[in-house]
Amino acid sequence: MTGDEAAPGSVRPGGRTARVREAVLRVAGDLLAERGFAHLDLAEVAAAAAVGKTTVYRRWRNPTGLVTDLLAEMAEQSLPRADTGSLLGDLTANARLVAATLADPRQGKLFQAVIAAATCDEAAATALRRFYDVRLTEWSPCVEQAVERGEAPAGTDARAVLSAVSAPLYYRLLASGDPIDDDAATTAARAAVNAVTAGTFVESEH
Amino acid sequence: MTGDEAAPGSVRPGGRTARVREAVLRVAGDLLAERGFAHLDLAEVAAAAAVGKTTVYRRWRNPTGLVTDLLAEMAEQSLPRADTGSLLGDLTANARLVAATLADPRQGKLFQAVIAAATCDEAAATALRRFYDVRLTEWSPCVEQAVERGEAPAGTDARAVLSAVSAPLYYRLLASGDPIDDDAATTAARAAVNAVTAGTFVESEH
Repeated sequence: MTGDEAAPGSVRPGGRTARVREAVLRVAGDLLAERGFAHLDLAEVAAAAAVGKTTVYRRWRNPTGLVTDLLAEMAEQSLPRADTGSLLGDLTANARLVAATLADPRQGKLFQAVIAAATCDEAAATALRRFYDVRLTEWSPCVEQAVERGEAPAGTDARAVLSAVSAPLYYRLLASGDPIDDDAATTAARAAVNAVTAGTFVESEH
Repeated sequence: MTGDEAAPGSVRPGGRTARVREAVLRVAGDLLAERGFAHLDLAEVAAAAAVGKTTVYRRWRNPTGLVTDLLAEMAEQSLPRADTGSLLGDLTANARLVAATLADPRQGKLFQAVIAAATCDEAAATALRRFYDVRLTEWSPCVEQAVERGEAPAGTDARAVLSAVSAPLYYRLLASGDPIDDDAATTAARAAVNAVTAGTFVESEH
């Protein structure tokens, strides 16, 4: 980013490594959003990030390495779960967060590129699953607390509920092309709560 | 397919054209499922389908042309809507059809490839939207009849209901990686009916 590879010791190694990572992943995200996975080139990323090509190849190895680390960074930086006191409140907050991300021009394109990469690259697919696992784990307490409050039946599957909130928004992004607006977000949250209340997400093992 | 380009007049032109299309699209579908959109090559398709290269280039022009026509063929051949007499029965049939398609190794990979193509190619995206429009139009009467039978409130948005059935299955295919099994299909249908019953899919314009 600052091209300070020639001045080692001017900052702590950890700080420099973190700054290099930030610069490289921001450029990688920009290029992915702009042109997709098929055109992600490490030499171009290195040049645009003003980081040595050798550093980029040694640390990320290939386009999949960049996508994997980008998804890890997105998981690290993603916002904590909501805690509004009601299941509908929490799931609406979750749906709005997902909708805002997918409707954002850069982020929406970035998710499309990463999901496209995952369809033809096993390592990218694993990184994508891991990203969703982190998000699902972060938000699961919303469902667990709803069970404690008596808003949801015992044995309600948190992963199924949170997937039900996200799914219609991803379907709009990837399949139907319908708008990802606040109406779509609130409907997704309400529909999930309807199904929770009816006991549809109670795990069959329970 | 039969390499009969040198024997014009041996079959009706319409018949031959249809056979050439079938052979080319079958090979295109196989290659898409196997290796994805980025590696779809018209010359290779022509050779594997035993159809003249000139014919393939003249008729389909580029990989997007093949994907567009393949989606048109899939829409033509897709099964008619169910008519079980209940909304839950119809939506469960719909969910099972979608799940069987996405869980099928060739078809699942084909949908992933086409959706990946749509993320980076505007014409492929338009063809994909049109495919879903055809499916949604075919199945909409299930919801309209549910309204007539009093199973769904007046003003229930058929497109929203059918999208809600498909969405969790596509989310498993493209994002979470969770299994696309009969449990997933029946849960998707039941959750959609729960939300219909609660009036969540009544269009806000009504």
